[in-house]
Amino acid sequence: MSPVGNPMSLMMQEILEQPEVLRRTFRAECEHAREFQAFARKQNFRLVVLVARGTSDNAARFGRYLLELTTGIPVSMSAPSIHTLYHARLDLRQALVIGISQSGEGTDINLVLKAARRQGAYTIGITNEARSTMAKLVDDAFLVRAGRQRSVAATKTYTGQLLLFYLLACGLGSHITLEGVSELPDRVKQTVKLVPEIGKLVERYRYMRACVVVARGINYANAFELALKLMETCYVVAERFSAADFLHGPIALIERGFPVLILMPPGKVFRELQHLTERLRRLRAETLIFSSANAHLPAATRIIRVPGDIPEIYTPIPYIVPGQIFSALLAEVKGLDPDKPRELHIVTRTV
Amino acid sequence: MSPVGNPMSLMMQEILEQPEVLRRTFRAECEHAREFQAFARKQNFRLVVLVARGTSDNAARFGRYLLELTTGIPVSMSAPSIHTLYHARLDLRQALVIGISQSGEGTDINLVLKAARRQGAYTIGITNEARSTMAKLVDDAFLVRAGRQRSVAATKTYTGQLLLFYLLACGLGSHITLEGVSELPDRVKQTVKLVPEIGKLVERYRYMRACVVVARGINYANAFELALKLMETCYVVAERFSAADFLHGPIALIERGFPVLILMPPGKVFRELQHLTERLRRLRAETLIFSSANAHLPAATRIIRVPGDIPEIYTPIPYIVPGQIFSALLAEVKGLDPDKPRELHIVTRTV
Repeated sequence: MSPVGNPMSLMMQEILEQPEVLRRTFRAECEHAREFQAFARKQNFRLVVLVARGTSDNAARFGRYLLELTTGIPVSMSAPSIHTLYHARLDLRQALVIGISQSGEGTDINLVLKAARRQGAYTIGITNEARSTMAKLVDDAFLVRAGRQRSVAATKTYTGQLLLFYLLACGLGSHITLEGVSELPDRVKQTVKLVPEIGKLVERYRYMRACVVVARGINYANAFELALKLMETCYVVAERFSAADFLHGPIALIERGFPVLILMPPGKVFRELQHLTERLRRLRAETLIFSSANAHLPAATRIIRVPGDIPEIYTPIPYIVPGQIFSALLAEVKGLDPDKPRELHIVTRTV
Repeated sequence: MSPVGNPMSLMMQEILEQPEVLRRTFRAECEHAREFQAFARKQNFRLVVLVARGTSDNAARFGRYLLELTTGIPVSMSAPSIHTLYHARLDLRQALVIGISQSGEGTDINLVLKAARRQGAYTIGITNEARSTMAKLVDDAFLVRAGRQRSVAATKTYTGQLLLFYLLACGLGSHITLEGVSELPDRVKQTVKLVPEIGKLVERYRYMRACVVVARGINYANAFELALKLMETCYVVAERFSAADFLHGPIALIERGFPVLILMPPGKVFRELQHLTERLRRLRAETLIFSSANAHLPAATRIIRVPGDIPEIYTPIPYIVPGQIFSALLAEVKGLDPDKPRELHIVTRTV
């Protein structure tokens, strides 16, 4: 049973599988990461291009920050239409092009990977399906070991994709260590313990129709992913911004009681998010902070304490988990079935 | 007077200045574009990186499509925090880094440009202020000739920035011609004639609190820009998606009567947007199409006909103008002053 009294949704089941999925994925792909490191040193990649849709595109957004921060190689997020609709030819020599797709059957993503190979790139696929079209067409496939995804809203495959980006970052630079990555499954095991607490909290948001999710830096992608979960499963019109972009216009939206969810890890972005929260308080917005920081947190309407003492660079996987739980349980409190989002299926085919 | 009966806002005045601003900018920078072409041929740029915030970031999003489509050089949108907060060192040899800022005083943008120069990049600034910090620090500055921006919501500087991206595309590739660009001021002159028609139309949206803006390909950036205008001046919670990303999750938001604004130029993206509109109609969503296509348009709740027979690649400047007019007039109909958005100022300083 879920804490709000319903039989447990597939979405919640898959959220709870994550410590095991991450452990399995790490073990299975760890040696592969070491081999890739030896290979990458010889290749001298000058550019990384990431291509994905939906939740996988949010994983790409994370990969973009992680890889630039830890490897010094510029990273671009591909606009698939440039290849699939306009058929542009890009110069991709010395480029590493990484496709991300849970099913490995995203038509547009696979078209971009094929075009990229023709244009001189080395291609990698990150997918949950070893026998997929993507896994067969790329030069090298890194596999999420999530088991079959049965929930329409992706959770365990998203964190699995993030974990594989850490392994690729090990291969392409020296900042991320296998030891640091190996601790992630246990960190998530701590985080899923928040289920009962979040089960009580979601009642408050029963009538929330719109909100803004704010994060910055290495957790920016999580703002997009949490907003996407809220849109898909709770039909909340959820905006998502970096704290800086938010101040360049959208803050005008904020009126008394408008809900703003803030991912506030310790580290480089903490102070700025602290100031933003204080400003939102003066505007009488409703604020919900997700934080593991030991530092003094600003006064917020509600706080979800993420357990553990987590270095900033390793926060993204543990920080999305309470957001996943929040979305799954809020859907139920709203009388919706998180496993049956309107108009959605697990595989979406677009060109 | 504006068509809704108020004295004309600064925002509307600046919208109407655009044909002249574009003509002035084209004339003043045309020769500069030719010189840049000669220079760029010798440089052999391998990568373009764009860095901006707010409306200028939407201009960058346009530049990203235009430059990849017409020059074959991969383009990346920079995440400023990677430089300003985390101080990563990127390998930017043979990279062209372009900063975009109306005022030329965006602290973070200028920090990224400085870091990029140290890391081996050639830097260009696109700004409206010839004496700004940005104009002084870059290797080469392309100037929008918009006159002073007095409206908080940027309009004429956005289309001016887009025009300069066309001139840069002339320099870096062979698809865009000076002749094609020279026609843009007149195209906008046709578009501003829509003011009275849009003045009648906006009444319908008086109580709109949330909406989705959809576009794709070369107009993708305009979806972001129109949504930003709606957030800043009308406080509408305005989501924005490519048609493909929309189908990968957010379409779940759509219920009977939910408003979706669709930018539907003729060309490569038309058919897909046509299908999307038909699907939205089956969901009983409210649709508002912006289109200049001669082709049969799908049944929509309302249509704004963009005048002229415009080749797809040149649609973005004429296509944002009705959106700007819509936002300025809707603000008035909602009883808001588009020149006084809550919490905003013309120059926003973030790091």
